[in-house]
Amino acid sequence: MEITGKNFIGDRLSGIGEEHFRTFNPLKNIENKTLFISATTTELEEAVALADAAFPIYLELSDAQRASFLKAIGDEILKISDDLIDIYCRETGLDQQRATGEMDRTLFQLQLFAKTIETEDWRNNITEHALPDRSPKPKPTLTKTHIPLGPIAVFGASNFPLAYSTAGGDTASALAVGCPVIVKSHPLHSGTGAVVATAVIRAAQKTGMPNGVFSNLNAKSYQLSHDLVRHPKIKAVGFTGSFSGGSALQKTVFNREEPIPFFAEMGSINPIAILPEALKKDCQKIADKIGHSITQGAGQFCTQPGLLLTIDGASTEDFIEELTKVLKGVGQKCMIHPELKKNYVRQSDKINRLEKTIEILAHKDQWDDQFVKPKLSIISGEQFIANPQFQEEVFGPFSLVVKCKNLKELEQLILHLKGQLTGSIFAPATHYDSIHPLIQAFKSKVGRLLFNDVPTGVEVTAAMTHGGPYPASSDSRFTAVGPGSIYRWLRPITYQNWPEELLKKMIN
Amino acid sequence: MEITGKNFIGDRLSGIGEEHFRTFNPLKNIENKTLFISATTTELEEAVALADAAFPIYLELSDAQRASFLKAIGDEILKISDDLIDIYCRETGLDQQRATGEMDRTLFQLQLFAKTIETEDWRNNITEHALPDRSPKPKPTLTKTHIPLGPIAVFGASNFPLAYSTAGGDTASALAVGCPVIVKSHPLHSGTGAVVATAVIRAAQKTGMPNGVFSNLNAKSYQLSHDLVRHPKIKAVGFTGSFSGGSALQKTVFNREEPIPFFAEMGSINPIAILPEALKKDCQKIADKIGHSITQGAGQFCTQPGLLLTIDGASTEDFIEELTKVLKGVGQKCMIHPELKKNYVRQSDKINRLEKTIEILAHKDQWDDQFVKPKLSIISGEQFIANPQFQEEVFGPFSLVVKCKNLKELEQLILHLKGQLTGSIFAPATHYDSIHPLIQAFKSKVGRLLFNDVPTGVEVTAAMTHGGPYPASSDSRFTAVGPGSIYRWLRPITYQNWPEELLKKMIN
Repeated sequence: MEITGKNFIGDRLSGIGEEHFRTFNPLKNIENKTLFISATTTELEEAVALADAAFPIYLELSDAQRASFLKAIGDEILKISDDLIDIYCRETGLDQQRATGEMDRTLFQLQLFAKTIETEDWRNNITEHALPDRSPKPKPTLTKTHIPLGPIAVFGASNFPLAYSTAGGDTASALAVGCPVIVKSHPLHSGTGAVVATAVIRAAQKTGMPNGVFSNLNAKSYQLSHDLVRHPKIKAVGFTGSFSGGSALQKTVFNREEPIPFFAEMGSINPIAILPEALKKDCQKIADKIGHSITQGAGQFCTQPGLLLTIDGASTEDFIEELTKVLKGVGQKCMIHPELKKNYVRQSDKINRLEKTIEILAHKDQWDDQFVKPKLSIISGEQFIANPQFQEEVFGPFSLVVKCKNLKELEQLILHLKGQLTGSIFAPATHYDSIHPLIQAFKSKVGRLLFNDVPTGVEVTAAMTHGGPYPASSDSRFTAVGPGSIYRWLRPITYQNWPEELLKKMIN
Repeated sequence: MEITGKNFIGDRLSGIGEEHFRTFNPLKNIENKTLFISATTTELEEAVALADAAFPIYLELSDAQRASFLKAIGDEILKISDDLIDIYCRETGLDQQRATGEMDRTLFQLQLFAKTIETEDWRNNITEHALPDRSPKPKPTLTKTHIPLGPIAVFGASNFPLAYSTAGGDTASALAVGCPVIVKSHPLHSGTGAVVATAVIRAAQKTGMPNGVFSNLNAKSYQLSHDLVRHPKIKAVGFTGSFSGGSALQKTVFNREEPIPFFAEMGSINPIAILPEALKKDCQKIADKIGHSITQGAGQFCTQPGLLLTIDGASTEDFIEELTKVLKGVGQKCMIHPELKKNYVRQSDKINRLEKTIEILAHKDQWDDQFVKPKLSIISGEQFIANPQFQEEVFGPFSLVVKCKNLKELEQLILHLKGQLTGSIFAPATHYDSIHPLIQAFKSKVGRLLFNDVPTGVEVTAAMTHGGPYPASSDSRFTAVGPGSIYRWLRPITYQNWPEELLKKMIN
């Protein structure tokens, strides 16, 4: 299919702007062909006006109608899956297997949200009947339900062009519960976004959705993003990306006259605490598991373990040796974009310059392309505590090993961390009493706590929490993954004293 | 009992500051005796440090232990209820009946939250078992639960010295789920606050709670409030009060390095739409009901109906006449404080000066004491739309009648409103089709929508929503009243791959 490079203002293609850009093929180290046209303020206003007009109509549709829309999006994506996987690979350097896996996850999420609204009491309806004889005063009938907030702005992730972008988790969860969505397309994969947007618009038309329920805007510069989140008719924001990008948007949201929910998932270094007792038993297995988790997808996952907390001693030395072997065995990996590779090299070098660290796997950086190799650095607990820069995320296949003096120092170090998406503990199950302080420390810092397991591989399910204390996410009370993520876009409303026959018409 | 005027830093009384103030008896038009000592920065730091130290201990207590603490608070309040009601009346000018009613509500809330955590699955635990044979990759055990955020700052309301203050809804809901609470006592009823704080501290000691689980700080000026909400160890804020106070604190929260949940309930004018068809049938009954709702508690409720949306015509004229009679029949009412009376007179006069309005009940203002009489003003729909100042809350027994040209204009006017706690429609149940646009318009604006009923008299129950789109509340996704209000202070966490016998120890 042809990718026009234009914006989707509802079902209309538009490209009146003067800012143009191309996406990049990191495998071939060349720009892709399509010229994308950034949306203008006028186009943004049009998209928002359409979304605002679509909202009261979309809101009134039945759950079955919105579910059919979500399922149709999946069908339309499947119809153009060859084109989609082709452009995905050309815009990311990721392989076909990863592309297919992520597409499957996207399709699964669309199905999941469709099923949630079709089969579950997702509005958490509570009805309390009247007590006309109650003293001192009768009780009226009360019915509590949940309604959508309004048009939502979605900012997809650079590292998940499908599952956390155009028709990814944020979009699918918002559309499911009745919120129109305006996606600000990620400039690193605008082509992938355009192909998905085509599928969404086709699905909207085929299932009779109001025009404006979905728009997709291109932009290379940041201005449009800020204009979007400060627009009075945008009622919530979903963001997946870097801390700097998320913080900048949050600032703009905070300066609105009307504050709105801003849910940003901004990455994490996902500490893993490894006890010598675990290593004594399973050193090689653990090194394998962690090594694979560090380097999977060139380390470009928000749940990549960038911090390994160990206790100094022979077992840890063995582990580092094993892990080094595993990492050396991993071939070079292509990063999504030259800028990300540059950042990776710059940041991992910076970490190494901060202290006299042992650099185990520092390869000569190859600036002629986007391939990188895993790096591992080692510091002491004291060094880690002394410099907050060691807590900065290095996006890529890097991990920092911290050798603590003892379990107490390890606990202190966890308490010293910023908020994280995940934390993990490797220990024998028989050692609960000794790891209890670590569990308590991690509980105050993470959204997901793993035992003898690695954080990559997020299950899309009701029991998942993807989020965590700031800065892992901007509001730890919500998950960005799984059916529970719909509550980011809903608010409760109570109907008082309404006759039952009217209530039936008011609650879908 | 003696009220010392000191701060409760955990279980220790402290008064090292140099700012002093007294509360005011509006009925007698004199200051009360006790000299209160504002907390200093040092005392604030001590209270926060104690709360932070108490948190990991409090968190580990069983639901039964925390429930026994809440119930003990109720018992201790009952033991000193005579003193409490005495000081309540002396600090507010409200009568004994209201004081007793509010005390009963406070005791009921403490019982409700105790019962919620003792008997309900309030953590919304979800367990998904492992699927070791799943392809392409096994699924680990996942268990999702909810944990408390940490120490909470609570700012009570001037108009609810008991139910929404020291041991009111915010405090009780936070304590119930494991969050230590620091109350910034309201300077208009610091004596009432001190008596309640005494009960809370006694209950904490008797039930073996960690010291610091509760503190109560006096302050006349605003500085301490801002210092409290910007403190890095405070993890959420509950506020009930004015828009100006709430907005100022929100700004400070927004400037924190770590953003935290800020739930403010900032008042509302609670529009009531009244159709001629309803008036034709029940004019006198409706006027009675609304008149009582406007003037109850001297109009000092956040759900007081300050805006009556009508359709111009004979029925509405009859209604205004009836309502006028009802309001004239209401004797003069004592407001809580001279400042509130001054504001009432100033704001209601300002509304009347904004347009050439018909002032039906403007009495000569009596500046020698705190008594006021109800006021009613009338404007057209056009006048209302033209000036946003008509949307400002007049705290007291005031209501503004708007005469719309027709139903369409009434709908437009609702859409023009800011967010509200409540909206009401008076209409015959047979007129659903004609009120449908009003329902839709109100749904986008309110947290509670009533039918042939008035908004005062908030039920404390699971089906209640007390909150609403900004500026009624700062986050419409939560209710401030009822068992659901605990979710303001909780966040989800997922445990992955933990053996069942360890999980049992980790989830209370």
